[in-house]
Amino acid sequence: MKLIRYGEPKQEKTGIVLDGQLYDTSAFGEDYNEQFLETDGLARLEQFVFENAGKLKSIPENSRLGSPVGRPSKIVCIGLNYADHARETNAPLPTEPVIFMKSTTSLVGPNDDIILPKNSTKTDWEVELAFVIGREASYVEEAQAMEYVAGYCLHNDVSEREFQLERNGTWDKGKGCDTFAPLGPYFVTKEEVEDADNLRLWLKVNGEMMQEGTTANFIFRIPYLVHYVSQFMTLLPGDIVSTGTPAGVGLGMNPQVYLKPGDLVELGIDGLGTACQRVKAYAAD
Amino acid sequence: MKLIRYGEPKQEKTGIVLDGQLYDTSAFGEDYNEQFLETDGLARLEQFVFENAGKLKSIPENSRLGSPVGRPSKIVCIGLNYADHARETNAPLPTEPVIFMKSTTSLVGPNDDIILPKNSTKTDWEVELAFVIGREASYVEEAQAMEYVAGYCLHNDVSEREFQLERNGTWDKGKGCDTFAPLGPYFVTKEEVEDADNLRLWLKVNGEMMQEGTTANFIFRIPYLVHYVSQFMTLLPGDIVSTGTPAGVGLGMNPQVYLKPGDLVELGIDGLGTACQRVKAYAAD
Repeated sequence: MKLIRYGEPKQEKTGIVLDGQLYDTSAFGEDYNEQFLETDGLARLEQFVFENAGKLKSIPENSRLGSPVGRPSKIVCIGLNYADHARETNAPLPTEPVIFMKSTTSLVGPNDDIILPKNSTKTDWEVELAFVIGREASYVEEAQAMEYVAGYCLHNDVSEREFQLERNGTWDKGKGCDTFAPLGPYFVTKEEVEDADNLRLWLKVNGEMMQEGTTANFIFRIPYLVHYVSQFMTLLPGDIVSTGTPAGVGLGMNPQVYLKPGDLVELGIDGLGTACQRVKAYAAD
Repeated sequence: MKLIRYGEPKQEKTGIVLDGQLYDTSAFGEDYNEQFLETDGLARLEQFVFENAGKLKSIPENSRLGSPVGRPSKIVCIGLNYADHARETNAPLPTEPVIFMKSTTSLVGPNDDIILPKNSTKTDWEVELAFVIGREASYVEEAQAMEYVAGYCLHNDVSEREFQLERNGTWDKGKGCDTFAPLGPYFVTKEEVEDADNLRLWLKVNGEMMQEGTTANFIFRIPYLVHYVSQFMTLLPGDIVSTGTPAGVGLGMNPQVYLKPGDLVELGIDGLGTACQRVKAYAAD
């Protein structure tokens, strides 16, 4: 299945993609979140869709899409998980996964604006494959790890490089600003993705291809990441784990290039859809 | 007011402390969480308690206490906010606050066991003053910052030093293990704390005083921290911000001393109560 959430921010309704068309599933009566996933919601939703297939209403054209997963307990990110990206940022190849966290307040829809934070001069892009946890995961063995993955999403791990690297403290400072985690368009369930370790991913800025990679170049693959992260914290259903970005970020260019108001960011992953974000300056309400 | 939550994990009921006695406030019908705080819950609770003062039931003796705040959207921590602690860990004095995050799955009650993670050899203690956000806070001016603080809690920012410092990546890896954020006993509302920048805090291990400090030695004070953190992420009602620890952690000793199964950790802050945690080895369910 391909799940979506649509409507105004904080009031999103649920939906599903059938034969390329978007249908409302509000009548199912549950948001796509922790509680939904931990109570076998995907199987129940599939049954609901099967029983109501002809009766589902199309969602209004031009509807805004929200994050396809409701606010998770956490967004965990893996840093430097592609060798080419580690090299371009002059970071040593990690001997074990790098973990950092994004504030869940950074989560937005796939086509929402990216708002440059106040005083930002180095806001950068990072196309990433994110996976969604389906079951509570603590000290998971690598061999069983995929039982804990519910599905996948396209993610732009927007990053303010000055905040991340030059302002004292951990990377978290440059990763969790509002609008810094556009997620979606879809939450694609696991069985629809044949090989998550072999997906092409790309990102353009103003039409120019900046990142073009494949998850075949992961340093650490998804089953290992589930195992590894679950040694340090319990992952809950609905939690998002983002797997790192390939080469081609603004930080890695010479001279460095960062986002400015008016820029258009487009990104995609094979089978997970595409997203498009306009960059705007921060303006007080 | 002093708010508590009590009962079995994940099924906590709410309560309040009146004249040193613990009373149940379940009839108020709301958990102490984001929604409660953002809908002026503290004022409504005060009115409820006033109207029902003689009718509130005592909570059962020996009740377990839970975290006095329901699961927040995030736990943000400030590192190295006391000069003596920065010195003992051989870290330079920060020129601006260090920020890291704890997984919210680390949150437990004030007297719950601390479970040493699998393969942990360096689990350490950190008594801290935490504050609770009362209103959505983004780009807050220092002069208005205290309007965004709802109250305070005692917090043990339990930390695995090998995971934090020797395993690649950010500090988050050693900060978010299950049971690593015992919070409480109380959520003490702001008006009950005369001067949060002048509170004595202490921590003992097996009866021996290890940390004894005062928040008067903060490098960065609470209004500045609210202002500062809100430049990098939006803080939501119920979010926890922990303000750093004074000298006396195991990492700072020569030789270093870490927690082992059977150890007893006791800690307290003037006016915010005391907590007591037994250390246990991890055991699979």
